[in-house]
Amino acid sequence: MEVATTIESVRSLVRAARKRDQRIGLVPTMGALHVGHVSLIEAAVKNDDFVVVSIFVNPTQFGPGEDFEKYPRPLEADLELCKKAGVDVVFAPTPERMYPSEHLTWVNVEKLTEPLCGRNRPGHFCGVTTVCAKLFNIVAPDVAYFGQKDGQQAIVIQRMVTDLNMPLEIVVCPTVREPSGLAVSSRNQYLSEQQKTEAANIYASLQECRRMIDAGVTDARQIITRMQEILQQVSSTEIEYISVVDAETLEGIETITGKVLVAVAVKIGPARLIDNILVDTDK
Amino acid sequence: MEVATTIESVRSLVRAARKRDQRIGLVPTMGALHVGHVSLIEAAVKNDDFVVVSIFVNPTQFGPGEDFEKYPRPLEADLELCKKAGVDVVFAPTPERMYPSEHLTWVNVEKLTEPLCGRNRPGHFCGVTTVCAKLFNIVAPDVAYFGQKDGQQAIVIQRMVTDLNMPLEIVVCPTVREPSGLAVSSRNQYLSEQQKTEAANIYASLQECRRMIDAGVTDARQIITRMQEILQQVSSTEIEYISVVDAETLEGIETITGKVLVAVAVKIGPARLIDNILVDTDK
Repeated sequence: MEVATTIESVRSLVRAARKRDQRIGLVPTMGALHVGHVSLIEAAVKNDDFVVVSIFVNPTQFGPGEDFEKYPRPLEADLELCKKAGVDVVFAPTPERMYPSEHLTWVNVEKLTEPLCGRNRPGHFCGVTTVCAKLFNIVAPDVAYFGQKDGQQAIVIQRMVTDLNMPLEIVVCPTVREPSGLAVSSRNQYLSEQQKTEAANIYASLQECRRMIDAGVTDARQIITRMQEILQQVSSTEIEYISVVDAETLEGIETITGKVLVAVAVKIGPARLIDNILVDTDK
Repeated sequence: MEVATTIESVRSLVRAARKRDQRIGLVPTMGALHVGHVSLIEAAVKNDDFVVVSIFVNPTQFGPGEDFEKYPRPLEADLELCKKAGVDVVFAPTPERMYPSEHLTWVNVEKLTEPLCGRNRPGHFCGVTTVCAKLFNIVAPDVAYFGQKDGQQAIVIQRMVTDLNMPLEIVVCPTVREPSGLAVSSRNQYLSEQQKTEAANIYASLQECRRMIDAGVTDARQIITRMQEILQQVSSTEIEYISVVDAETLEGIETITGKVLVAVAVKIGPARLIDNILVDTDK
């Protein structure tokens, strides 16, 4: 496995792979790799000939007061994990390499970035789409992998790729969960064992939502109220949003029909946690 | 010469050229091709193995009340000209092919798009950078050619390419002028012969500016005042701006030093005309 820290070096490694007619897969990450990332890497290793994992804690997607400084950066462990998983190249640039001068150019996806996490994290998705555009231009992959856990992010990135005719495919992999149901996330590290147990309630509320929809409930309001009750059973949980939206437009809906995204964001202690499920009533 | 009207067809032609290890040049245009465009095509034919000219009157870079509807679209003549110039592929998509559904994703370059033409054409440069990003992603050229006549546009696009790590080179070719000095532009078609004669005054004012700088004048205000006098000799000329700016940041300067862009926009009859010169006092 190669570790590239400059744009030129990762480009030259990918160019060589391309010459060998290899299909290039990219897994963009902020490091602090866990079994969720591993599932993305495994999908890439299975589908592609040459797998690049980028590790970059992107400053432009963190807002003021967010956890950019304290975001975990266990590079040695991450490299070890990538090596074991069969990654060909880890691209781990410094912020100075990615943003060498005053950065003036931003890629912004309208509408889809406004609800859900967009409401409480202004500028977040603009930072995400901009750094992904940069990574896609640097690595030039045939396919890039994202997790369903960051459901809105996956939808926003897919829209950017479609709108700007970026020549790659986006693959969204299922959320990986702990045995308790808690969605695996680098930010789970911020939780005590007690808080982790409490955080399992997030998925419990989503499961109850799925149960209600399966049982024929179509009133979004009724579902949200029930999920609220479940989440409020744990006093340490501060609800940021519980949203039932159209899975394509991300617009709020009153009646459950077609493809629906049910998304939750809460704060538990020091961590802001998100989770979601996709429901398709036509299936 | 091939004419591709779909994204898939131009991509497949470029892919074949790439397989032959050919260097790909792109000349993005809105059609109504003239000797200015021909100079860009000639540069591409000289430097590259495979030359693509795109012809697309991009709706998203026209503001309300601008000339999108009446912008000339002489496709047959354009194709003839491309064929003679040695172009390999003309990519001429419909608006529906370029913007098939509600377009939500925009590439925006901050600061550089605010002064000069940005002030009177809100959203113009955002439309330009977005469609160029799309064209670059569709054609995947090694190099793209732009004219110095649209000086701010060239600077904005170069900045987008640098900031987003787009894997191509931008070449800016000198402004082509009529014998009168008038910068060649598709919009000159809107002018009567009388107005064309009057429009030659624009370049006369820029030449006077260069003469003053060569003679040691460093006070930008003094130069602008003199250019104003020259432009106002023609009563039909309505001055939009005369600006003396740093050629990199496009910020206004009071004292001429280093690389300076002197840019003019005027309205003469039905046409909005722009022109500029680059001056380097260090040379």
